[in-house]
Amino acid sequence: MSAHPHLNPVDIIVKKRDGGALNAAEIDFFVQGYAQGRIPDYQAAAWAMAIYFQGMSVEETTALTLSMAASGEQFDLHTGMPPGTVIVDKHSSGGVGDKTTMAVAPIVAACGLPVGKMSGRGLSFTGGTIDKLESFAGWSPDLDRAHFLEQLRTIGLVIAGQTADLAPADKALYALRDVTGTVPSLPLIAASIMSKKLAAGADAIVLDVKCGRGAFMETLEDARELSRLMVGIGQSAGRKVTALITQMEQPLGHAVGHALEVAEALATLRGTGPADFQTLVESLGAEMLLLGAGVGADEARSRIRHAIDSGAALEKFRAFVAAQGGDSAPVDAPELLPHAPLVLPVPAPSAGVVQAIEAREVGLAVVEMGGGRTKKGEAIDLRVGAVLAAKVGAQLHAGDPLCHVHAPSADVAQVALRRLQAAWRIGPEAASPLPVVLDRIAG
Amino acid sequence: MSAHPHLNPVDIIVKKRDGGALNAAEIDFFVQGYAQGRIPDYQAAAWAMAIYFQGMSVEETTALTLSMAASGEQFDLHTGMPPGTVIVDKHSSGGVGDKTTMAVAPIVAACGLPVGKMSGRGLSFTGGTIDKLESFAGWSPDLDRAHFLEQLRTIGLVIAGQTADLAPADKALYALRDVTGTVPSLPLIAASIMSKKLAAGADAIVLDVKCGRGAFMETLEDARELSRLMVGIGQSAGRKVTALITQMEQPLGHAVGHALEVAEALATLRGTGPADFQTLVESLGAEMLLLGAGVGADEARSRIRHAIDSGAALEKFRAFVAAQGGDSAPVDAPELLPHAPLVLPVPAPSAGVVQAIEAREVGLAVVEMGGGRTKKGEAIDLRVGAVLAAKVGAQLHAGDPLCHVHAPSADVAQVALRRLQAAWRIGPEAASPLPVVLDRIAG
Repeated sequence: MSAHPHLNPVDIIVKKRDGGALNAAEIDFFVQGYAQGRIPDYQAAAWAMAIYFQGMSVEETTALTLSMAASGEQFDLHTGMPPGTVIVDKHSSGGVGDKTTMAVAPIVAACGLPVGKMSGRGLSFTGGTIDKLESFAGWSPDLDRAHFLEQLRTIGLVIAGQTADLAPADKALYALRDVTGTVPSLPLIAASIMSKKLAAGADAIVLDVKCGRGAFMETLEDARELSRLMVGIGQSAGRKVTALITQMEQPLGHAVGHALEVAEALATLRGTGPADFQTLVESLGAEMLLLGAGVGADEARSRIRHAIDSGAALEKFRAFVAAQGGDSAPVDAPELLPHAPLVLPVPAPSAGVVQAIEAREVGLAVVEMGGGRTKKGEAIDLRVGAVLAAKVGAQLHAGDPLCHVHAPSADVAQVALRRLQAAWRIGPEAASPLPVVLDRIAG
Repeated sequence: MSAHPHLNPVDIIVKKRDGGALNAAEIDFFVQGYAQGRIPDYQAAAWAMAIYFQGMSVEETTALTLSMAASGEQFDLHTGMPPGTVIVDKHSSGGVGDKTTMAVAPIVAACGLPVGKMSGRGLSFTGGTIDKLESFAGWSPDLDRAHFLEQLRTIGLVIAGQTADLAPADKALYALRDVTGTVPSLPLIAASIMSKKLAAGADAIVLDVKCGRGAFMETLEDARELSRLMVGIGQSAGRKVTALITQMEQPLGHAVGHALEVAEALATLRGTGPADFQTLVESLGAEMLLLGAGVGADEARSRIRHAIDSGAALEKFRAFVAAQGGDSAPVDAPELLPHAPLVLPVPAPSAGVVQAIEAREVGLAVVEMGGGRTKKGEAIDLRVGAVLAAKVGAQLHAGDPLCHVHAPSADVAQVALRRLQAAWRIGPEAASPLPVVLDRIAG
């Protein structure tokens, strides 16, 4: 061995292929080499597939995360903030009807904890927060760094688009994984999520790990392993991280579709959201206060109820929309949000109890109406969607509405209606409403 | 499912990743797509790594082989031959001191069986037949198709370089595997070897699968599995195939180095080669006659002895060298072959019995003297090498020669001498000479 060992990509691929543990230098050599174009796509693809099969330890995954976070700009959100300010962020692993950020961020900000967040756009059967917020005319996710920090300081709430330079190594690797069959690897998923969170600069992060047939993690076991990995990575990086594993067997709340979800988030800010969604939002908000404000669970819950009941949460949302150039009038008059010309009930084909709802199918039915992207850059019809009337456990007569479809035309509505109808499984057995929070993994 | 399912590379990668068996259509779609540039390197790399981990059945490996063979020109060697002519080929998986083709091909051709063979150049610690034959001034491996067929018809022996269009999909995939850590996969190795053999057009193929620390297959188990795979592929493709698994724990014969190996092959054509090499050549030759001439084992051995003893084998070699433009004078006067200015004995550092010789180290010592390539296209010093004096089982006094190093200069000789000396393990225990043929796998 030379005193200055010369790392090379093939040796690193072979080491992982044979089940070895890579050290931080090897991982950083590979990640920066790939991000900077010195290591070609084909070696990164072979490496990712070797990781898919051999896995990575928490130490390796942490090194991967830190290297990807360091591949671009790393934000410091404390500029201009009082000393000791803790900035919190939340992340959801994505699901159908997941409008959580729009409700929980203003509530937590109204409790005095600054929330500075970068969000993505939607792809496939799940929507993106940025797309949903564009339901407010004029609202923009494009803030430069100075404006981001200024708004965080004055309003305490920012939701911005991801800058191109946030973890570019992750961006490149994710795009490659997408076309090489290497997406479903827990260490690669954990590193992808956490690298962006670390680079985005929050001190404390609450992770909402969706679990069930409507989410990327289908089993509780996988969701727990992913959560433990991400909490471990956060700790190694000196951030406070808590993960809630939450149920995604059926769509979250009632609304699926961009403007419809905004309306539901507004209701939740008033305390009148659907029971499961209101519970989820308050649970995640409480975790953010636990990490960021250092209060106990009861105190956290009480502050959150106060922010809602006093109207402070809604006021924070109003100020946030306006600060990013949006017309905030729909905050107080949701009927001003974009809305579809046609609303039709989707009738239950038979009597019985709702046993299950295929969340993915509901999401895809909305995408098919134009309410989602099948490829990057496509325009979205913000108006369309479905509002659920019967969730798991509901007792139905034949012809009772399963949901209402919001469609641009009668033809489109009929196609969506049949697809939505097929997503409900109705049977004679009794069924309980599904739990909201399945587990909690804390550091 | 559509009636005309649209194949896509990611689905095929994922199917293999998850342990599924690919059908011939999927494999051919991937192979031709890659060879023709429609499927990018990174997807082929991920696919190869998935195959590395999940393996391939004999059926899948056969489909892969046939698809790669069909990716370029497929030779028919029967043009101008009497009806019913069986054309035999042999292939060695490569080892140190492996000059087998130069001895066995003329012997078999002298027995009346046409041998039309395409060979490669050397890389890493093993030499290539084409490079070795260039020890004959003027000899050329470049024959067009018409000349190849003409020489096969008139002389019955051709050794040519591989044309660029022989299994181009294999060429592309092999180059990719080399830089993505996906070389040591038995189905990929088997398909790579057999696709070239099938495209090259022989009716019968004898495989010399080297096994031991000086070969790519280090264990007998791996060598057997590779042999069974290749025999199975050949049968599926309607070719007769037999594999001999032969020992490569120590260099084969005595000579390692291009011109030195030519001299040893010439000796073997006269029946005076080193015992292990003479045995190997006659065993492989007998297998070729079994497959190609349909004779029994005793008759095959007797014909081979006659070809050697009568001088017919040497005469066939002489004619072959001349037909491809070479000066055949060294066939009868080996001292005319290129030779190094310096020959030094490498002394045994202690008394004892030779327990083992690291074949790979011997090969690398020769490469280091200029007698091999460390990258494609490099020039080779045909003169340099080592001639072994003590093989496993030999009893030595301290100072007895282990081998003689043939070097271009005293400095180079000293470096090689130390490296060669370290390749011998000498101990007090008795040791038997190693067996030559370890197993035989026939269809």
